[in-house]
Amino acid sequence: MEPLSRKLIAELLGSAMLAAVVVGSGIAAQRLSPGDVGLQLLENAAATAVGLYAIILIFGPVSGGHFNPVVSLVDAALGGLSWKHAAAYVPVQVLGCVGGAVLANIMFAAPVVSISTTERITVPHGVAEVVATAGLVLVIFSLARTGRLDRAPAAVGAYIGAAYWFTSSTSFANPAITVGRVFSDTFAGIAPASVVPFIACQLLGGLAAIAIVRVLYPARQADPVSSPASGAR
Amino acid sequence: MEPLSRKLIAELLGSAMLAAVVVGSGIAAQRLSPGDVGLQLLENAAATAVGLYAIILIFGPVSGGHFNPVVSLVDAALGGLSWKHAAAYVPVQVLGCVGGAVLANIMFAAPVVSISTTERITVPHGVAEVVATAGLVLVIFSLARTGRLDRAPAAVGAYIGAAYWFTSSTSFANPAITVGRVFSDTFAGIAPASVVPFIACQLLGGLAAIAIVRVLYPARQADPVSSPASGAR
Amino acid sequence: MEPLSRKLIAELLGSAMLAAVVVGSGIAAQRLSPGDVGLQLLENAAATAVGLYAIILIFGPVSGGHFNPVVSLVDAALGGLSWKHAAAYVPVQVLGCVGGAVLANIMFAAPVVSISTTERITVPHGVAEVVATAGLVLVIFSLARTGRLDRAPAAVGAYIGAAYWFTSSTSFANPAITVGRVFSDTFAGIAPASVVPFIACQLLGGLAAIAIVRVLYPARQADPVSSPASGAR
Amino acid sequence: MEPLSRKLIAELLGSAMLAAVVVGSGIAAQRLSPGDVGLQLLENAAATAVGLYAIILIFGPVSGGHFNPVVSLVDAALGGLSWKHAAAYVPVQVLGCVGGAVLANIMFAAPVVSISTTERITVPHGVAEVVATAGLVLVIFSLARTGRLDRAPAAVGAYIGAAYWFTSSTSFANPAITVGRVFSDTFAGIAPASVVPFIACQLLGGLAAIAIVRVLYPARQADPVSSPASGAR
Repeated sequence: MEPLSRKLIAELLGSAMLAAVVVGSGIAAQRLSPGDVGLQLLENAAATAVGLYAIILIFGPVSGGHFNPVVSLVDAALGGLSWKHAAAYVPVQVLGCVGGAVLANIMFAAPVVSISTTERITVPHGVAEVVATAGLVLVIFSLARTGRLDRAPAAVGAYIGAAYWFTSSTSFANPAITVGRVFSDTFAGIAPASVVPFIACQLLGGLAAIAIVRVLYPARQADPVSSPASGAR
Repeated sequence: MEPLSRKLIAELLGSAMLAAVVVGSGIAAQRLSPGDVGLQLLENAAATAVGLYAIILIFGPVSGGHFNPVVSLVDAALGGLSWKHAAAYVPVQVLGCVGGAVLANIMFAAPVVSISTTERITVPHGVAEVVATAGLVLVIFSLARTGRLDRAPAAVGAYIGAAYWFTSSTSFANPAITVGRVFSDTFAGIAPASVVPFIACQLLGGLAAIAIVRVLYPARQADPVSSPASGAR
Repeated sequence: MEPLSRKLIAELLGSAMLAAVVVGSGIAAQRLSPGDVGLQLLENAAATAVGLYAIILIFGPVSGGHFNPVVSLVDAALGGLSWKHAAAYVPVQVLGCVGGAVLANIMFAAPVVSISTTERITVPHGVAEVVATAGLVLVIFSLARTGRLDRAPAAVGAYIGAAYWFTSSTSFANPAITVGRVFSDTFAGIAPASVVPFIACQLLGGLAAIAIVRVLYPARQADPVSSPASGAR
Repeated sequence: MEPLSRKLIAELLGSAMLAAVVVGSGIAAQRLSPGDVGLQLLENAAATAVGLYAIILIFGPVSGGHFNPVVSLVDAALGGLSWKHAAAYVPVQVLGCVGGAVLANIMFAAPVVSISTTERITVPHGVAEVVATAGLVLVIFSLARTGRLDRAPAAVGAYIGAAYWFTSSTSFANPAITVGRVFSDTFAGIAPASVVPFIACQLLGGLAAIAIVRVLYPARQADPVSSPASGAR
């Protein structure tokens, strides 16, 4: 099998696992803790944080463990991933996230495909998505530019666990998972009309992060510069 | 003492500790948080995740820290553990898990042996067990095939902590613990009639994971390939 | 860009992220779990702990990842950071924390600037701030003096997560975040009149920690002595 | 200052911090989450787990970070710590834990010295203390005998976090903290009459662990054998 195919399989499976974790734990939390939305978010955030840690460890050495179009595009912009590979990653990530949401629905005996009716876009939520995505990209590329990518699985899991709480949007921060969550009419879902503005804000956050990374970590350093695509070890 | 005996003692004690953690924390959660099943699962999942981390650290260098027949069988199938050793591991793991469940009953002043009446098998739960076990095997063997087994204790604990939430079956993912949980008529128990179908789904998950591991991590790589049996350092 | 400017940008952004995490997760917790103040604190503490871990990983290699005037002043006193740099760090940390609190207010559609009315100073709370800050400084400089600063992100996150619970003041332990929290009339806020006594107690805690560090870790040791300012790798 | 004095100061301060974390977070949990004992235990366990991680990191390189007479005595029995040093450690650990409990009472404006009225000893609780202490000792010395003591801070924190849940006694597992908890008439306290039987069970657990360590990790191994007293790096 040629290397790119293997990378795409990793991104497909990893994105599906990520969406299954996010949506599945969201369904479980909503059903098991009906009396307190905060407790639901705590359960959802904890499961997502530790799940992300495991998923990035599994797939990182193959594909970089992006599962997120913003991460792949920023990696290309910063010279890590080729644009051709980034263009192949993005649709696979979206497909994986949709598949993972459907899998979660099946596991929880929910309608296999249900479209969310949770409208989410507001100006504060838009600001929150810019901040959440910029922070996520900063975590990954500050590690990449200082030779510390072996810490990315824990750092990304921890960051997202915090971001579920400190942003009002509960930190989608990922266009692929945003599309995937459309297919879950639960606590974790998002209505189709909110998807495009959410993704626009996420891309804006990615751009902001590129600027900050370039200021804080200019490319020529003592440390060897690597990229997520080179394997998260 | 010959090496295999020592390995079997480690698997016996480790499996007993694992079952004591799973069942004991399940009893405590059910008794102390009677008003919210979600909170019970959060308590049970958190205790299991950090407990697994400690237990694998203790016994990993001796036996590989499997405590799970699917892991031992997959290790044999992938050329790590000998089939003879795998055949010796499996009954010891089951025995250990039963002993650990009984120990938990004793510590919590519950009937020493009580048989669970919680029927669990449904098609969605079966799918969940396939997914949960495949994910667990993927975590372990993606680390094994890339020279990162020192991260297995944290990765397995984190994965199981997530899987309690993102699968509808609360992720048994282990035939030995499935048998052990029969002996606990609590929140964490499983009725005998559900055991065989659960184990069948777990084995199916193991097979699926073998296929994925072979695609993502073909054996010949730059990294030295090791196996859980070689010690989780 | 000269090195000091880059350090100050890192301290500004990191302090803002820290305050956004503390205040933002405080607002979310208060809104989503209105029935149980303990659950709110658990949510707030968990988000802060894992958030701190990520933020120190991001900015540590640039500025040391202090985000806290007591840490910068102790670093100067112990010979790590120059006094000139410490003097530049402090106002930037305060400014960042105020900005982060305002950002949290914006993300949660709260009044952009609201002044807290939560009076906090009492003798027990003052003792708590001395203890909390001394412990924080001990964590950082015991790692710094033994060549283990790569563990600072996890250690500081873990310590603060515990300190939210084991001190009655919920462990502000940071003059910059104390000022920032004035601008949040929520669960996480502090009234202006409590600020000066809180900061005085924090400085006292820093002094106590310097004495303990000097006893436990005299500067000349086998391990190379580094300081947070040398990068948290 | 001679080395033993420094070690004793480290054990004194570390034991005090440990007791302040255990008792302080117990008081906070009881006050803030009055409606659910399980939630209180979750808060108490989480704070203790992450607090222990930080405290062992701080003091480990100086004294080994024992804070527990059973650990010091087992270390002496296994040839790590000298018996003379172990005899000096024990009273200091007890004194530190009493001081830490009193400090927690002061921080939370509780009576400075209050004697617990919570009777805890029963046969199941006794079994639980044997199991809890044996597990703790196993964690530490399996790491010590395989050159992995740098993982002790996380392993001990994680183990205790699990043990609060999987043992019915909530895992005191430490004679010094058992005495310290007498001075706290709260959720975390223990009545004086329960102290001696608890300590007897803890010592029994330590003896059991010595036997298991000797079977699983005979002293002559490829790995260099070190002991907690040699520094938890």
